Amino acid sequence: MVWPEDRACDREWLLKAIQGATGVLLFLTEKVNAELLDAAGPDLRVVSTMSVGYEHVDMGELASRGIKLGYTPDVLTDAVADVCVMLALMAGRNVGEGISLVEAGRWPLFNWSPFALCGPQISAMPGYPPRIIGFLGFGRIAQAVLARLVPFGVTHFHYSSNPASAPNNARDAVLVERYKLSTLKRVDIDQLAQHSDVVFVLAPGGEKTRHLVNESFLKRMKKSSILVNASRGTLVDSAALALALREGWIWGAGLDVVEGEPDVTADHPLVKEPRCVIVPHIGSATLETRVAMATLAVQNVLAGISNEPLVASVNL
Amino acid sequence: MVWPEDRACDREWLLKAIQGATGVLLFLTEKVNAELLDAAGPDLRVVSTMSVGYEHVDMGELASRGIKLGYTPDVLTDAVADVCVMLALMAGRNVGEGISLVEAGRWPLFNWSPFALCGPQISAMPGYPPRIIGFLGFGRIAQAVLARLVPFGVTHFHYSSNPASAPNNARDAVLVERYKLSTLKRVDIDQLAQHSDVVFVLAPGGEKTRHLVNESFLKRMKKSSILVNASRGTLVDSAALALALREGWIWGAGLDVVEGEPDVTADHPLVKEPRCVIVPHIGSATLETRVAMATLAVQNVLAGISNEPLVASVNL
Repeated sequence: MVWPEDRACDREWLLKAIQGATGVLLFLTEKVNAELLDAAGPDLRVVSTMSVGYEHVDMGELASRGIKLGYTPDVLTDAVADVCVMLALMAGRNVGEGISLVEAGRWPLFNWSPFALCGPQISAMPGYPPRIIGFLGFGRIAQAVLARLVPFGVTHFHYSSNPASAPNNARDAVLVERYKLSTLKRVDIDQLAQHSDVVFVLAPGGEKTRHLVNESFLKRMKKSSILVNASRGTLVDSAALALALREGWIWGAGLDVVEGEPDVTADHPLVKEPRCVIVPHIGSATLETRVAMATLAVQNVLAGISNEPLVASVNL
Repeated sequence: MVWPEDRACDREWLLKAIQGATGVLLFLTEKVNAELLDAAGPDLRVVSTMSVGYEHVDMGELASRGIKLGYTPDVLTDAVADVCVMLALMAGRNVGEGISLVEAGRWPLFNWSPFALCGPQISAMPGYPPRIIGFLGFGRIAQAVLARLVPFGVTHFHYSSNPASAPNNARDAVLVERYKLSTLKRVDIDQLAQHSDVVFVLAPGGEKTRHLVNESFLKRMKKSSILVNASRGTLVDSAALALALREGWIWGAGLDVVEGEPDVTADHPLVKEPRCVIVPHIGSATLETRVAMATLAVQNVLAGISNEPLVASVNL
């Protein structure tokens, strides 16, 4: 059965439609919990989510019932990396303020002066210290952002990873060699905050990473620095970020995700901050990438129904 | 004498302050014409503009009076190239609509669906034809944009130059080799319009290039294509572009400049187009670049006063 409308499906419809199914293809918008799996019944073999994240899925429930979980990694890496670069540029160049000024019809009244609307430059600039770009989480998307920033004249990178994970010096050596980097270092989260000109938040969501970017992190950052979050809203404490922007602890922020989305209203403290640019979770929203994600999600559900290995499955 | 306020200086003040000067440092906002030069008197040796463009300067008047013209090329190349990449990404990813939706408090009501808010992807995508990026004008800034797009997986580029200029095959061969390009071709303007996924307008302003992007150019472009203008507003016919966006001849536009700026009001046809993102001429607006431009402009005016060759002078 296929939900016929071009919007997230009604829960009630889904709970009925899934009865007796052997496979289901769904999105981030659908909670996969005991209620849904009970409604499906014992024939369900595979849940295929058209997303790279799976925090909407109760993994324990799937594991205990022997149901496979398919997801869509890799195919969205480039689309999200594009948005990361875009948001970093937008936040540095005061684009929120610039667009508002034009849309409100204030351009004719704008007093041009040599430093009006100026922000920190991401491209390297002779006579200034080299930019240092930091990644909170250093997976596929972070590495794709790194590659994109090299021709901006950036050669100094560092990152923080899950402290429980082993160092990957071989991979880092390959990146240093491939992109002729001056530095690529794994550092602790305090050093990451302190030394970065831009921090890209690109770690998985969930309880373990909740509010990794909090008041203490933001207070350590440079006044001229930029925070970009294109992973999950839960990683950043919204109240702390709003305070940081209001009080000038950092220069600006570019967000593709906000904690509690989509319930982010016009009076949300981050929406009201002029130095915060927010787009509504469009990281993977390109025609090409969504077709690739849909294709992979369909391949996963078909493989699961046929008791074959999924093309991309989450290890439960 | 120095204009004391942090805004463009009053004409009346300038006409008095310039009397008897041997040099003057000014901005795009000041028209350099017979009136100003008459007010200055016969001692004026140098006009130093803190800009890379000089369409606010009457070159004939300067030449006939033997006055030198200094400008600030090169130092703003990276800042403007950054904005070009940003605007191309913003226009493709429907950022104007995305920001409006969030600011108006419509995110909670937004019906997520697999293709909502999707736009064309700039990064190369397996299974799709390669992106072709076009430059109208292929100077320093265009070449800096080209370099930035290579790690987006783009290897096909073409450009149109002033038809009177000689081909520069040696330079193109160097770029092909350095960036491992598949194609770098000089083409005529019709082919440029027809085959590009993104067109960056990066040619000088003035009468010769006025409305190079007109209805006929825009009608030749792909429906999924993007137009970026970060040079001068006069190159693009605003009425034709508004029509192209309204009728879907092209996907979107990102503009740092608009003809007739800063007199661009909220009811301007381009400001009203949701697929047109406009920022108020911030191409060079970074702290680092504006300091570099100011430094070069000061060096030019000092050299001119001392009858020494300018660091960067326009050939009159």
